[in-house]
Amino acid sequence: MIVGATKAEDDRYLALALSLGRRGQGQTWPNPAVGCVIVANGRVVGRGWTSPGGRPHAEVQALAQAGPNARGATAYVSLEPCAHHGRTPPCAEALIAAGIVRVVAPLEDVDPRVEGKGFAMLRAAGIAVTTGVRAAEAAQDHAGFFLNREQGRPLLTLKLALTLDGRIATATGESQWITGPEARRQVHAMRARHDAVMVGAGTARIDDPSLTVRGLGVTRQPVRVVVSRRIDLPLMGHLARTAKDIPVWICHGRDADPSLVEAWQGLGATLLPCEVSGRQLEVASVLGALGTAGLTRVFCEGGGALAATLLGADLVDELVVMSAGLLLGAEGRPALGAMGIDRLAEAPRLDLVESRIIGPDVMTRWRRPIA
Amino acid sequence: MIVGATKAEDDRYLALALSLGRRGQGQTWPNPAVGCVIVANGRVVGRGWTSPGGRPHAEVQALAQAGPNARGATAYVSLEPCAHHGRTPPCAEALIAAGIVRVVAPLEDVDPRVEGKGFAMLRAAGIAVTTGVRAAEAAQDHAGFFLNREQGRPLLTLKLALTLDGRIATATGESQWITGPEARRQVHAMRARHDAVMVGAGTARIDDPSLTVRGLGVTRQPVRVVVSRRIDLPLMGHLARTAKDIPVWICHGRDADPSLVEAWQGLGATLLPCEVSGRQLEVASVLGALGTAGLTRVFCEGGGALAATLLGADLVDELVVMSAGLLLGAEGRPALGAMGIDRLAEAPRLDLVESRIIGPDVMTRWRRPIA
Repeated sequence: MIVGATKAEDDRYLALALSLGRRGQGQTWPNPAVGCVIVANGRVVGRGWTSPGGRPHAEVQALAQAGPNARGATAYVSLEPCAHHGRTPPCAEALIAAGIVRVVAPLEDVDPRVEGKGFAMLRAAGIAVTTGVRAAEAAQDHAGFFLNREQGRPLLTLKLALTLDGRIATATGESQWITGPEARRQVHAMRARHDAVMVGAGTARIDDPSLTVRGLGVTRQPVRVVVSRRIDLPLMGHLARTAKDIPVWICHGRDADPSLVEAWQGLGATLLPCEVSGRQLEVASVLGALGTAGLTRVFCEGGGALAATLLGADLVDELVVMSAGLLLGAEGRPALGAMGIDRLAEAPRLDLVESRIIGPDVMTRWRRPIA
Repeated sequence: MIVGATKAEDDRYLALALSLGRRGQGQTWPNPAVGCVIVANGRVVGRGWTSPGGRPHAEVQALAQAGPNARGATAYVSLEPCAHHGRTPPCAEALIAAGIVRVVAPLEDVDPRVEGKGFAMLRAAGIAVTTGVRAAEAAQDHAGFFLNREQGRPLLTLKLALTLDGRIATATGESQWITGPEARRQVHAMRARHDAVMVGAGTARIDDPSLTVRGLGVTRQPVRVVVSRRIDLPLMGHLARTAKDIPVWICHGRDADPSLVEAWQGLGATLLPCEVSGRQLEVASVLGALGTAGLTRVFCEGGGALAATLLGADLVDELVVMSAGLLLGAEGRPALGAMGIDRLAEAPRLDLVESRIIGPDVMTRWRRPIA
């Protein structure tokens, strides 16, 4: 049976499914953010993406919208439909039941409960399955979910907002504002597309940040993660005051003061004990704890010590640099703490992904080179 | 008399004249780099730009190419034609003699020997003169020449080649190479468009640079300027060995050791005594000395102390940042020395002019805001 669609059509509808899927980024953890488009007779009859919290899945939403039009239609899904019974029946079953005759998807889900079983279930029901369309783009979109399943840690995006000479504040600590309102708005949009916003203890103490997404009408605020070995954080700050309303997770050393652990639990924070190595928290253990807790995408906003440690441990998947046209000189606070690098060959090198002018500033995005 | 050309044609031909003029940048000092296009009956019959060394002028070259076709034609010139008898007769006279009937130019020359007299001479001969076309672009192109005439100093472009965290070398001094070959080639092209390349004494000592333009076939190498209060420079380095072939100018304090002054004069260098303020050379005095010597465009390539001093003195007209996707951490050498800035409001702020991807790196260009 040939269910007609050209390669160009497949490409276009899958691009649409991917872009719908990205709407859910930051909202669907621990589930992947998937998009789905149902096409019947060259017309889009259903669109869906994973709901906040991860349910309903994209396919279910798109099928509900398509209704009887799903019979004989093609489903474009940005990830292999699930095959396992969880809180809901598997999406592969739903597609079969709705009378879908063809499924186009970029790649297999790496979750061991799916891993090809979704495609197999569809094929067994006589559905034509095309894979490999826009696979690289999909791998990028689902990188956080895949890293969680394969390496037990979330994807990590590090953001630095800098002067042209790499400073994040004056010697006296003044940092508001280096970048303009357009760049800061962009940062809020990036926070919204991550499951969590993370800072080190120094930043939490000095800046007393709220770390929320403002001005974008998001329904589910990202988790606020603070990395502090000794839980050396102000009990009167923004985070403490709002921990009952918007999640605050504290990654601390197992050797932290138990009374501080209890105090923060009392304030409504979630405490994640992590390994200590030397005088520092082990960042791999921190990301492991966040991965176990279900996070797939974490947005780190400094400070310099945490950023340097993450870069040194090769745990930064994407780096976003907001460069503002001002200069502070050598006394300004450096963007990164010590990294112990003597030779250029030892320095982390990243590949440019994008360069964009944002108001008076320049945003560049960089990624770990593909090995 | 109407000598027909639409506004769009005027704009287009003057754009051509400006682009021809820019070919001479870095080659024509102490004269401005001017371009000229002669148009007869909608056809370009002559093109010229100021020759290396400043003579012949653009108009003379374009008229020579046009020959008898210049009679009745329009001349598009990127700057007011000169009106004074110098080593050659004034270009305004040459245009009149050739039978040009209309001249289109962006703006007056600020040189007191010209300053409107060129246009007046043309008008007195019955030539129609249109000014104001692409005036802002022309002011930018001639900024170095204008600054020299009006403030007695050259335009200063500062280049920084940096890691993403604003470092120019590892703690051990390794700096080759942070940026890629494409960016380095671009730097050579920029050197070629400046009258001189300037570095501080530290850079001259540590890097032992040749500071020449390589791989671009330039006929006139930029002057190599070293700023060193005490002339604390290696007598066996690249600059010392080649000073007889390619100019080396040393800006030093009046209190420098006279035997070092004589030694460098013996090597073929030009020595420019400058004022000292406290423990440092007065950078305004350095630029003044370079302006008096005829330079109109200077390209400074560091190091950090000189760059910070120039920025602090508000003497940087354009900043070029080459950003490479690597990170060195707080021990890396900072791009700028101390600037003594406590408040963000005191920091120099520059406006973005251009952002461009160059190989694996990103180049951004910034300019002092227009007051």
